Amino acid sequence: MTYTLVLVRHGESDWNAKNLFTGWVDVDLTDKGRAEGVRAGQQLKDAGILPDIVHTSLLRRAITTANLSLDAADRHWIPVKRDWRLNERHYGALQGKDKKQTLEQFGEEQFMLWRRSYDVPPPPIEADDEFSQHGDPRYAGLGDAMPATECLKDVVTRLMPYWENEIQTDLADGLTVMVAAHGNSLRALVKTLDGISDDDIAGLNIPTGMPLVYELDASFKPVTPGGRYLDPEAARAAAEAVANQGR
Amino acid sequence: MTYTLVLVRHGESDWNAKNLFTGWVDVDLTDKGRAEGVRAGQQLKDAGILPDIVHTSLLRRAITTANLSLDAADRHWIPVKRDWRLNERHYGALQGKDKKQTLEQFGEEQFMLWRRSYDVPPPPIEADDEFSQHGDPRYAGLGDAMPATECLKDVVTRLMPYWENEIQTDLADGLTVMVAAHGNSLRALVKTLDGISDDDIAGLNIPTGMPLVYELDASFKPVTPGGRYLDPEAARAAAEAVANQGR
Repeated sequence: MTYTLVLVRHGESDWNAKNLFTGWVDVDLTDKGRAEGVRAGQQLKDAGILPDIVHTSLLRRAITTANLSLDAADRHWIPVKRDWRLNERHYGALQGKDKKQTLEQFGEEQFMLWRRSYDVPPPPIEADDEFSQHGDPRYAGLGDAMPATECLKDVVTRLMPYWENEIQTDLADGLTVMVAAHGNSLRALVKTLDGISDDDIAGLNIPTGMPLVYELDASFKPVTPGGRYLDPEAARAAAEAVANQGR
Repeated sequence: MTYTLVLVRHGESDWNAKNLFTGWVDVDLTDKGRAEGVRAGQQLKDAGILPDIVHTSLLRRAITTANLSLDAADRHWIPVKRDWRLNERHYGALQGKDKKQTLEQFGEEQFMLWRRSYDVPPPPIEADDEFSQHGDPRYAGLGDAMPATECLKDVVTRLMPYWENEIQTDLADGLTVMVAAHGNSLRALVKTLDGISDDDIAGLNIPTGMPLVYELDASFKPVTPGGRYLDPEAARAAAEAVANQGR
């Protein structure tokens, strides 16, 4: 008896395509991103891995990816849960900034520290910044938990209660759980699942629109470390492309 | 203090366009139907009527309409509940049949009795009929409650527990509730809300993709009988077109 957890990173967004730091800015998918969502659902359907429940962030690009992929898998009718704890890492004052310009302005070392260090957050965003989510009704209930910037460690910290209380509960009920989320919230989850060190997580890149399937034992530990992509070759090529973003 | 309930009938489906009886057959929206979903969301956004939670049936045409309209209204992130009790009326053995052919085969009187009588269901569908939902996993939990045909009275009966236990509870919590459903499940709900008689409900037609907004008092009774369409002229023209279907 194992549990089945399916992770799907949203397809290409408008700001992926424009090479901007996105974070909590609620941008839409590109047409390519929508096609990735549909493809993810077709892969699940072909593999016979059928989610019984889906968890998404509160961001459009993950929600639409979930909608498109579940529709393609004929699982559009399953229950839905949404939570800010699955959101992308908040990118602080970098939200809305061009990645290449930021690299040139601050240099390789600082740039990579913000992008890939475990515990160094970018500078916090001001509440009146045009790319701040201050006052957004979907976060009205967060109070002091509302971040102004986050490092990956912060994402792990805010994700853990949701993983333990919500996702594990659904898995323990025997449900095949799909999580439609983001590069960094999924890295935070995979770090926990696979016990990846604070240093090594920097090297992990999750490709967009490629279902990553974990079979978990009764302690929610992966039977096969790293899980498996339904299309491993395509996933490897796509992960390399992510690693080279901003270069 | 009033409660706000928003009803949205799904946009045009493939089988609306082909003039076939649909019922529980899980057909997709046409491009026109998708555009109707988007338009419904734009109307809600323009009117400043922002759903806090959405309830849908288990059928793709209502789910996709909800997804598209909530995305257009920037409310894609709200909680979602789905239930078979919001499904379209089960059309029994007529599912998959051409409306015009059925009219010619059985005559005007029998045709209108099946379409518009309150308590005469069509013949039941056989479990092995290609348009039966027998064995569909989304209905696995229904057991004996799984219908093989329904009249509108049957829809009222199965809808009432959901209206009273789920939708009213969300309204009482002060939430603006959107229900994305079907011609007959929404007629059943409107019949109850407005206290329409078994005879008079036959004359009520709800147009597709037009938000119908009810303000309800503390007893869940409409402040204004019949509610209001956000675009009353367009709604009237569309309702007349529905009334003439199959002619």
